[in-house]
Amino acid sequence: MIFPGGLCAFPITPADEVGRVDAAALRKLVARLAAANVDSIGLLGSTGIYMYLTREERRRALEAAMDETAGRTPIVAGIGALRTDEAVALARDAKAVGAAAGLLSAASYTPLTDDEVFGHFSTVARESGLPIVIYDNPGTTHFRFSPALVGRLARVPGIVAIKNPGWDADDAARLLAEQRAVVGNDFSVGCSGDWTATGTMIAGADTWYSVLGGLFPEVCLEIVRAARRGDAAEARRLDGGLEPVWSLLRRHSSLRVVYALAQLAGICHAEPPRPILPLPDPARGEVARALADLPAGFLK
Amino acid sequence: MIFPGGLCAFPITPADEVGRVDAAALRKLVARLAAANVDSIGLLGSTGIYMYLTREERRRALEAAMDETAGRTPIVAGIGALRTDEAVALARDAKAVGAAAGLLSAASYTPLTDDEVFGHFSTVARESGLPIVIYDNPGTTHFRFSPALVGRLARVPGIVAIKNPGWDADDAARLLAEQRAVVGNDFSVGCSGDWTATGTMIAGADTWYSVLGGLFPEVCLEIVRAARRGDAAEARRLDGGLEPVWSLLRRHSSLRVVYALAQLAGICHAEPPRPILPLPDPARGEVARALADLPAGFLK
Repeated sequence: MIFPGGLCAFPITPADEVGRVDAAALRKLVARLAAANVDSIGLLGSTGIYMYLTREERRRALEAAMDETAGRTPIVAGIGALRTDEAVALARDAKAVGAAAGLLSAASYTPLTDDEVFGHFSTVARESGLPIVIYDNPGTTHFRFSPALVGRLARVPGIVAIKNPGWDADDAARLLAEQRAVVGNDFSVGCSGDWTATGTMIAGADTWYSVLGGLFPEVCLEIVRAARRGDAAEARRLDGGLEPVWSLLRRHSSLRVVYALAQLAGICHAEPPRPILPLPDPARGEVARALADLPAGFLK
Repeated sequence: MIFPGGLCAFPITPADEVGRVDAAALRKLVARLAAANVDSIGLLGSTGIYMYLTREERRRALEAAMDETAGRTPIVAGIGALRTDEAVALARDAKAVGAAAGLLSAASYTPLTDDEVFGHFSTVARESGLPIVIYDNPGTTHFRFSPALVGRLARVPGIVAIKNPGWDADDAARLLAEQRAVVGNDFSVGCSGDWTATGTMIAGADTWYSVLGGLFPEVCLEIVRAARRGDAAEARRLDGGLEPVWSLLRRHSSLRVVYALAQLAGICHAEPPRPILPLPDPARGEVARALADLPAGFLK
């Protein structure tokens, strides 16, 4: 497997209301993750508001993160865009700056066909030379990758990994086996949907692409390590302790909750880009209570 | 009603593969519509690829169209964008150039709440001063406007009209009455989804926002005029003659079919922005046959 497995931690991208990145605040978030020894950093993911930032601002964010980590932690950079030429340009930028891989979604306005998504991904891989992680996120893109399409894409040179959406615990082993059957042995299969990820890591996924890991890497790393050494009970115990947080992510959306968590935990004060609003008050109170009720030292 | 009723015809926006608008080709399309005396022109709608064009290219398209019509035909300009400040800037550009109104969608990446969409629309209306048409297009935005939200938005100064998605013939009269009940008398209620629009115009909608009207305005104007004078039988007869075209739009998507129609009818040669592909061959043959089978002179 050429793609870094383990925990890929996704920080938010602090920015002002017109989409100018706060590079100093981003450096602090990235430094926390590098210090925790996460396996990789997922910059400019969905909670990293990649679709709301211009090419210039994405490049500024990436340069700040690369400079902060100084090559110690591989960075996977969100390169999704509506037009193929834009995604190619973003992938070239990421490669020029030194990103380890590009995270490419099927972001769309006009719903896309499988052939169109195949053309988009293979063009970006070919024209950029950057290793590509397929970002399957139907909750935002409304596109669904079939096993057949994943198999087709996995045979394209340079397409090296997939970040799957959350899988229910009952389905994870079967879906993982189905996907392994259509990709090569050196193709990395990863999961997201934080509240389902422990089950999928126990079932044998390579990488957890984690939103909570972008704020609180320690406990997420412990879960990943427990799952990898086969200690499912310990992974589940830690995961169970996070249930109050998972419940919030499920009910109020990852992006809005993680912004509130970052602020309430005193890590970073930022607001999502308008039209997205900060979590309204009753839900914000729930986040504060969930943080207060967690075992001491659970989140750091 | 302050907003122009009747036929609002939506041309495609010819552009190259990196999103540079072909202003000369656009002028020809717009000139056809102005010569046909459409009631308004809907520039930069969904089939006008507004989400795939930069602010600069949208402004170039709008300037070319405004110059071509020389103020004779009101222009409604697509101003949708992911960030609120971008939509405000696009609305100000449209106002500066002389557009009659801005067509604003709930385009999103992170799914939006009702409060977020309300904030987005009211901010754009307030900060631009441009009359706003609510563009409800769940097929691309995946957001659904509830009657309650439409009622709330219709009370915001400057939000003057709605372009509804296609309504089934059986539901059109009821949905139209429900919407009229929550908006003021001077709020314009319009329909789209070409293959359903005749039924909704017969039921009493003010405006047909039409994709086919952007290529073949004459027959669409005849349908609108028949519906408005109460001649439902004539409107339905004309609509029935277009069924081969409606079938294509339903099955192969409006955007891809209208590009093929434009080319096969010899009106304009352009391709959609990648990753969107031109209609593949079997479907393209269906479009050619549908054009050939229509009664002589039906489309002009």
